[in-house]
Amino acid sequence: MSETVIVSVEALRSRVAAIFRKAGLSSDHAGALAGVIVAGERDGCKSHGIYRIEGCLRTVKAGKVAPDSKPALQDDGTAVVRVDAGGGYSCAAFELGAPVLAARARSLGIAALVINDCTHFSALWPEVERLTELGVAAIAMCPSYATVAPAGGKDPLLGTNPFAFGWPRGENRSPYVFDFATSVAARGEIELHRREGRQLPEGWAVDANGKPTTDPEAALAGAMLPFGGHKGSAISTMIELLAGVMIGDFTSSEALDFLGTTALAPRHGELIIAMSPERFAAGRPGDPLARAEVLFEAIVGQGARLPSQRRFAARERTLAQGIALTADEAAQLDRLEALGLDAIS
Amino acid sequence: MSETVIVSVEALRSRVAAIFRKAGLSSDHAGALAGVIVAGERDGCKSHGIYRIEGCLRTVKAGKVAPDSKPALQDDGTAVVRVDAGGGYSCAAFELGAPVLAARARSLGIAALVINDCTHFSALWPEVERLTELGVAAIAMCPSYATVAPAGGKDPLLGTNPFAFGWPRGENRSPYVFDFATSVAARGEIELHRREGRQLPEGWAVDANGKPTTDPEAALAGAMLPFGGHKGSAISTMIELLAGVMIGDFTSSEALDFLGTTALAPRHGELIIAMSPERFAAGRPGDPLARAEVLFEAIVGQGARLPSQRRFAARERTLAQGIALTADEAAQLDRLEALGLDAIS
Repeated sequence: MSETVIVSVEALRSRVAAIFRKAGLSSDHAGALAGVIVAGERDGCKSHGIYRIEGCLRTVKAGKVAPDSKPALQDDGTAVVRVDAGGGYSCAAFELGAPVLAARARSLGIAALVINDCTHFSALWPEVERLTELGVAAIAMCPSYATVAPAGGKDPLLGTNPFAFGWPRGENRSPYVFDFATSVAARGEIELHRREGRQLPEGWAVDANGKPTTDPEAALAGAMLPFGGHKGSAISTMIELLAGVMIGDFTSSEALDFLGTTALAPRHGELIIAMSPERFAAGRPGDPLARAEVLFEAIVGQGARLPSQRRFAARERTLAQGIALTADEAAQLDRLEALGLDAIS
Repeated sequence: MSETVIVSVEALRSRVAAIFRKAGLSSDHAGALAGVIVAGERDGCKSHGIYRIEGCLRTVKAGKVAPDSKPALQDDGTAVVRVDAGGGYSCAAFELGAPVLAARARSLGIAALVINDCTHFSALWPEVERLTELGVAAIAMCPSYATVAPAGGKDPLLGTNPFAFGWPRGENRSPYVFDFATSVAARGEIELHRREGRQLPEGWAVDANGKPTTDPEAALAGAMLPFGGHKGSAISTMIELLAGVMIGDFTSSEALDFLGTTALAPRHGELIIAMSPERFAAGRPGDPLARAEVLFEAIVGQGARLPSQRRFAARERTLAQGIALTADEAAQLDRLEALGLDAIS
């Protein structure tokens, strides 16, 4: 219908970084943000792609994120490495902490990276994937905004609390990576159903009285539900405890109180646990990476899919052929490039 | 209908330990097994109660578990503490490793306990609960027998792979604890439906061709399904990787190959991660234990339940009033006490 513009992954990354620099972000932040946003486009994850630029800039314009904070590493030599993001976006803080975390996991077997006081909008898969490149397995989790009721409840309390995991598969293979919300659906999907006048699938949400509903209006006035009933609810609560309370940072409820809106990127912390398969398997029979491949073959061999395969296929395509932007997307990039923060209403 | 026999928790523990000693288990193993089995009865978890004694003894009689192995602690001062269970039951190995794990988590912030070469039948909640008593938060996981197909697949490959978490709430409160199978249902529940001629709820299982089925016979010939679709499937796969492959121990598929039957307790390993809330929260605003209570109050205050509350209520009852055994259960205990391994067909 409308024409598309083809742009290389590298060229798009430069453009997006330039947009962020123009909006007042430091080079480190601009580069880190452009990295994860263009990774989304590259992997066909439009929901974490260039569409996010505006939200990031809106949060800057609202004065709710520090555009030039310097993430500070705190490392006392224990198994807990900490980065104080100083109220800036989490991505640069992660880039600072990731190599230290991986090295610590390799020397101690297991280690954790805590990111505090960050503004967070990105997916977690770029982070666990980065850690697999550094040779370690990783679990990442964080709170978000209180929009989900605990199983059996009715009030928004938990966030969509993402949970991600990565396992290294060596240099020639994409890692085993999953990253999912612990809510059944994203809030944006409910909004989409509302706009299109469609009923929700059962099990997505409750109304303000805690009754199951398939009406998107009632769902938006009520709460979303965790995936997997009480089990998903328990995992989501664990994330509030470990990646909120335990690390001395906001829970999803406190994050929403702090900003008062879900229209800006939330402030909270993040917890990433890294483990060295080499250290854990030391002295035991078998090579863990080779044994993992047997498991993956048994999954794929019966017609099931490994998570993230669609992403990796899209990546192969876009790295070879470039990313196709719609005319609207290209125009919006031009606009952001020309106007900076003035493009944000 | 039939009369019941009331026995105190302590008296039942002594009797069960004596049964295990008579069957040739060392005092350490007998005491540890009696501890977790009677904890099941005490908490109203009949599925992990005295009904398990026979299965334990059957595994001993089949020569598939070492009745007098000495668990060996391997501690190189890193964040990974290891106990080689020497082919014995896991419970004594956990008892040996737990205090070292908790101490290591308190000094390094995060630490892991690996149990290798153990025979495993117990729930994980007694373990994470024990760790909360030692002041740390804990995540525990292990493979089991391959009876679950990955989402989108059709062949049993994953185990029912339990996932448990505990958070300490101080001395006067029961901890926050969950422990669930990553399959939708337990295999025993499907067997129960078959015997009673009832159809299964949708979503529990697939037949041998991978088609969803509500027929228990077809389900037993096929495979169970993970909870929560592809998300639960991903978590179950993570457990195979971390608590099987990474720690150099059996996956669920290898565990089933090793024994060739699901009628005996499986051999595999276990991974437990412990974190010190005090260490993680150090230097940050707020007391993590007090802040966690705000979260729990917000859950309970809206009519939702915390996990394990039924267990804790049963515990309060049985500690005060004793455990009620049916006449059949009491007779079976008498029989096991009198005959030892000869009571096992």
